[in-house]
Amino acid sequence: MIQISDGEGFLERTFLSPASFRATDVIISWMKDAGLTTWVDQMGNIHGRFEPSNSTDKALLIGSHMDTVIDAGMYDGALGIICAISALKVLRVTGKLQRLTRPVEVIAFSDEEGVRFQTTFLGSAAVAGILPESILQVSDKSGTTVQEALRLNSFEASAAALGQVKYSPESVGSYVEVHLEQGPVLEALRYPLGVVKGIAGQTRLKVIVDGSQGHAGTVPMKLRRDPMVAAAELVVTLEGLCKDPSRFLTYDEECGCFNEESLAGLVCTVGELLTWPSASNVIPGQVNFTVDIRAMDDLVRETIVASFSRIVMQRCDHRLVDCAVEHKHSAAATPCDPELTAQLKRATRSAVSAMAPGGHGHAGAESTATPVLMSGAGHDAMAMARLTRVGMLFVRCRGGVSHSPEEHVAEDDVWAAGLALLRFLDQHAVAEL
Amino acid sequence: MIQISDGEGFLERTFLSPASFRATDVIISWMKDAGLTTWVDQMGNIHGRFEPSNSTDKALLIGSHMDTVIDAGMYDGALGIICAISALKVLRVTGKLQRLTRPVEVIAFSDEEGVRFQTTFLGSAAVAGILPESILQVSDKSGTTVQEALRLNSFEASAAALGQVKYSPESVGSYVEVHLEQGPVLEALRYPLGVVKGIAGQTRLKVIVDGSQGHAGTVPMKLRRDPMVAAAELVVTLEGLCKDPSRFLTYDEECGCFNEESLAGLVCTVGELLTWPSASNVIPGQVNFTVDIRAMDDLVRETIVASFSRIVMQRCDHRLVDCAVEHKHSAAATPCDPELTAQLKRATRSAVSAMAPGGHGHAGAESTATPVLMSGAGHDAMAMARLTRVGMLFVRCRGGVSHSPEEHVAEDDVWAAGLALLRFLDQHAVAEL
Repeated sequence: MIQISDGEGFLERTFLSPASFRATDVIISWMKDAGLTTWVDQMGNIHGRFEPSNSTDKALLIGSHMDTVIDAGMYDGALGIICAISALKVLRVTGKLQRLTRPVEVIAFSDEEGVRFQTTFLGSAAVAGILPESILQVSDKSGTTVQEALRLNSFEASAAALGQVKYSPESVGSYVEVHLEQGPVLEALRYPLGVVKGIAGQTRLKVIVDGSQGHAGTVPMKLRRDPMVAAAELVVTLEGLCKDPSRFLTYDEECGCFNEESLAGLVCTVGELLTWPSASNVIPGQVNFTVDIRAMDDLVRETIVASFSRIVMQRCDHRLVDCAVEHKHSAAATPCDPELTAQLKRATRSAVSAMAPGGHGHAGAESTATPVLMSGAGHDAMAMARLTRVGMLFVRCRGGVSHSPEEHVAEDDVWAAGLALLRFLDQHAVAEL
Repeated sequence: MIQISDGEGFLERTFLSPASFRATDVIISWMKDAGLTTWVDQMGNIHGRFEPSNSTDKALLIGSHMDTVIDAGMYDGALGIICAISALKVLRVTGKLQRLTRPVEVIAFSDEEGVRFQTTFLGSAAVAGILPESILQVSDKSGTTVQEALRLNSFEASAAALGQVKYSPESVGSYVEVHLEQGPVLEALRYPLGVVKGIAGQTRLKVIVDGSQGHAGTVPMKLRRDPMVAAAELVVTLEGLCKDPSRFLTYDEECGCFNEESLAGLVCTVGELLTWPSASNVIPGQVNFTVDIRAMDDLVRETIVASFSRIVMQRCDHRLVDCAVEHKHSAAATPCDPELTAQLKRATRSAVSAMAPGGHGHAGAESTATPVLMSGAGHDAMAMARLTRVGMLFVRCRGGVSHSPEEHVAEDDVWAAGLALLRFLDQHAVAEL
């Protein structure tokens, strides 16, 4: 999967890009090899399903995403797809596929990162049936809408076609996802796998600052309405607000929701900042930047969003620039299903033991209790939780690094993840002989 | 000239761009129409010259630049070229061209703004003979070097060819330039024209901040090495340093050079800031930005540059990010020649009086003394001062706005500028009958 990129010398595979269609062909061939019936839906998601002949049970869906950020690592998304297909291929090779008691379906979602259209979960949200029709009119940087991008690639791109992508809650029993941790906890605990108790909520904003464009040499400092300095001040303030909210909150904003644990899970990021016209000798006329705010506690996140929006308006008034805060995306924190999580925990323990025969535990696993984590990153499971109960398995990564070419998962840990998913399938969906 | 653009819906005409060659054709046709002999030199500068048959006098050069910033106004550069050609055309039409006592040459310089290669005065510096050979290896954002860009457009692009562009000091007597003020002084004085006593010095830096790229959801705030926040802090600090240096200078940096007048002429700008990889859910791995520092007093400018460079290193150490400050361009302040300035002053007074018959002064001119200004903007005259003595005439613009589509010069003021240049030519280079 790392070889399938739209970038030269770095990994980039965004929604409906040329590389995403090359990846589709490869994933379909792997799914077929695992004995699955395959199709691509009207949002570009790839499905591979095994339907037992006499089952009336609800389906188990196992998924992750095939898109990447720009200059991405090779494990984010792809690891979950490959683990799922591999586990099903083992079932096929060992003759167990025919003993499945319920439909099992692997889904490779077309968009989770949201790089192209600045709106996450296009793929899984469509399957979960929570994607609004208005999404079709959202534009990327080049002005192409979702609808135009879909039609350029021979998808129908209508409200009706979106409706067909949606699964009915009655047909689905559960959703499970394997994903690299993208954080440092499992490495610190020296354990290859962990189960996820919930996913942090997330808000994405776009802040637009309009000032007075002018010549860098002739407008006195005192007469400037410089959106660059105003934006920079807001970036610095956002960091302070997330590190120490008490310094910034007004009386009205005090929620009593900040403590050591809630602050530990609060992260705020400006990942993209654009200047116009972007020349060294011109005071910019406009600067805009993205804001990403995440927290385990929804009230913490909402308080930070409200406080930051207020600060933007105050600072901009003070500097005589015009500011707007656009809400691009918001998702509440998502709890995982306790029963699925317990099953994943048992499967994990079994897999880790099996990889270190003699009962001394896995080479890198000094603890015997499977770690239970919160996820700071958003995942397709957030969207799928609107359709069905969800469970997630995290895989240890080096240094907690992700969204970077430095992202790394040890080969043994990839094996452990695949084996745990296989054991989960064994428990959850394979009839005993 | 405003219709000749590389941008759609905005004016952009950078060094050796397709639009710059369309502009070249138009300017050559105007020069020919004014009775001048034309050629394009090996740096893309356009020359139009009249050579009196029996003159041994040194040439008078009159120039300005044909390139623009991105999303530019229509007067910056083009006004000076068109005033010069128009004045010579009037000499031709009135039969005075044959009475010129010295060679007079109009030059439309190919690059003054430096947008494409981030290095100003490519055109005039080549004519003045101060362009280093190494300039040929400087790259634009796409990786194309000056040499490659020249060769793609059939220029020779060798050190020898650069040498041919250079004028010998013995052949040139003076250089004069008409330019819009790009500042608010003439408007405040309600006078259409002013003479320039000198041009501010300028330093351009590029600051590169390297941090740890990572996932926006999973790296705790305390463990981040975020180049975006570090860069934003530096942008805010630069503004503070230029508004109130005493708050930032160390004992060693105290130059005794800051007073109300020197601070009034000090301006610092971040016009361009780039993030990599530039996605809303990724902590950037690298952020870099441009810095433009200008001052009338060279010691003031050098002190600010040194102090800012020190602050960059201190703040970056504090944030555990890696910073580099690259010096891209530096130019000392340039005084204008007193004799040329006195001649331009006389010519200005005469032109402004002529436009308001009856001796009551120009409609917009309530003062009768021609204003004498400093220029905060760099001009080709800065490079040409290394070759010969220089003089400059400023034209009033609305609101002091430049480097913006809002840039505006009243039609009467354009006439006044052309007439003043004609009167200057009359005094300076036309034999009395």
